[in-house]
Amino acid sequence: MTRTQLVYLSGGVGGARLAHGLARLVAADRLSCIVNTGDDLVHWGLHVSPDLDTMMYTLADVADVERGWGLTGETFEALAWVKRYGGPSWFALGDRDLATHIMRSEWLRDGASLTEVTRRLCAGLQVATPILPMSDERCETMIDTDGGTLGFQHWLVAERALPPVRRVWFRGAARATSSVLAALDAARLVVIGPSNPYVSIEPILTLPGVRERLRGVPVLAVSPIVHGRAGKGPLAAMLETLGRTEPSARSIASHYGELLTAMVVERGDEKDIPLRAVLGTDTLMHTRQHSRALAARLLEFAVELGYWT
Amino acid sequence: MTRTQLVYLSGGVGGARLAHGLARLVAADRLSCIVNTGDDLVHWGLHVSPDLDTMMYTLADVADVERGWGLTGETFEALAWVKRYGGPSWFALGDRDLATHIMRSEWLRDGASLTEVTRRLCAGLQVATPILPMSDERCETMIDTDGGTLGFQHWLVAERALPPVRRVWFRGAARATSSVLAALDAARLVVIGPSNPYVSIEPILTLPGVRERLRGVPVLAVSPIVHGRAGKGPLAAMLETLGRTEPSARSIASHYGELLTAMVVERGDEKDIPLRAVLGTDTLMHTRQHSRALAARLLEFAVELGYWT
Repeated sequence: MTRTQLVYLSGGVGGARLAHGLARLVAADRLSCIVNTGDDLVHWGLHVSPDLDTMMYTLADVADVERGWGLTGETFEALAWVKRYGGPSWFALGDRDLATHIMRSEWLRDGASLTEVTRRLCAGLQVATPILPMSDERCETMIDTDGGTLGFQHWLVAERALPPVRRVWFRGAARATSSVLAALDAARLVVIGPSNPYVSIEPILTLPGVRERLRGVPVLAVSPIVHGRAGKGPLAAMLETLGRTEPSARSIASHYGELLTAMVVERGDEKDIPLRAVLGTDTLMHTRQHSRALAARLLEFAVELGYWT
Repeated sequence: MTRTQLVYLSGGVGGARLAHGLARLVAADRLSCIVNTGDDLVHWGLHVSPDLDTMMYTLADVADVERGWGLTGETFEALAWVKRYGGPSWFALGDRDLATHIMRSEWLRDGASLTEVTRRLCAGLQVATPILPMSDERCETMIDTDGGTLGFQHWLVAERALPPVRRVWFRGAARATSSVLAALDAARLVVIGPSNPYVSIEPILTLPGVRERLRGVPVLAVSPIVHGRAGKGPLAAMLETLGRTEPSARSIASHYGELLTAMVVERGDEKDIPLRAVLGTDTLMHTRQHSRALAARLLEFAVELGYWT
């Protein structure tokens, strides 16, 4: 088998920003993004895939970078009227964003797979890089808290990630899609984006056949922890409660363990990481220029290591 | 049984305008609007009830009177993005309007009846006058054309009402709701709004138990034909092809036949109407003042005839 592909594993915002940089530097026929769908939910009767949407919108340059979710120039008229009717408003769907969920739901009802639906949505947004849902089946990321078990978005958004997480688990016996397995089989290099390892990457790794396919290929992770802090998300608290460790790039390295062959961390966070190949650089991506610069440094590093040509 | 109610039978726009006037003059506990649901359709996976929505929005003073459908101040962002995805755009749903269909669909899925759903939506819009869907079951108005059979909205909107109508029929064995039958049992006066008799009123009349309940009560129709012309709708052509007659108030009277005891028509259209009680007045309703004035004249006329107090 000719291994020619860069396969990128990702959750939402942080992961999508690096994907944006990679997509500018790697030809669309050599890059695939495998995206977490454990956060998917049915809201207002519509199938919403938060991480897929963030990835699509980011690659299409229509994501709202300031707000961190949804579409730029978005309006919220439907939401305002749903509130007027006393309907559920804890999860905000914008008017343009609604079109994505409406079409996804419609096509799924017509029998198309989530993979095919995502391909069609990407075509509509003129995104050339393949975005592959990790599974066409439901795999729900569940959060056990002291007060009970919540779906991930309920915990994150409705509960504002406040209830301490006792356990993360995945409901359903989802399988990786054949596209995902084929991409991994053709992978020359796997990059794990700066996403939450517990709730964004683990759902992908937990699918049968994924971990074993990562054994024969260089796997490079980008740390989502920078100088002891996570971006906006709940990762720092999760490292403490679930990992029983401090939030650090080293903790991320330990979490992935033998899966990793190399790591990219923030400059200054290199110490004590038990890997020979560690690159310290600027990893915060506030602008598209940052995304592109980090992607370029990562690819250079991969070339130096012989992982990529 | 004490007959105290004014029961109003209606389709969409024209009917809703007169309802707006009646609702200002008749107390909410003496007025019920029974509304056609034969035009209902599932669009973008959502249950859309065009005539119920027009009635609700009109009574709530949030209808777009200029455009003739939908909400005032409406935006169409979701529609624009559905088009971007190559989705169906022949039936325009506005962003605020979407909230109505989202909540209706959600509540119906949860097991609420269309009657109950409509009550909740009206509560959200602070509409006090009871709006009663004619049925909680699907009764689809079908249009036979030379090119095949179409659902009503497909024929009206997608085909712009251009294919000549060979037959109108109603798919499904829908029953009137108990609320509709109870309203008719309590009716002191039934008013048939200036709606299309074939596709707006006939679906109501065709429900088992409705016609027989109209026999013992004064029934006053307002002509939707004014000086030989219908408003924007397809009624004039239907009178010619289906009724094999010319578009006139007289043809409307003939269509309803013995069902009617009185009629309100445009001044000058009174002649040859085979009813003793005919009022000629200004029936065009371009503004809310017109709606109120027509409602007031109609009620005076009903009082003169001994139909109303």
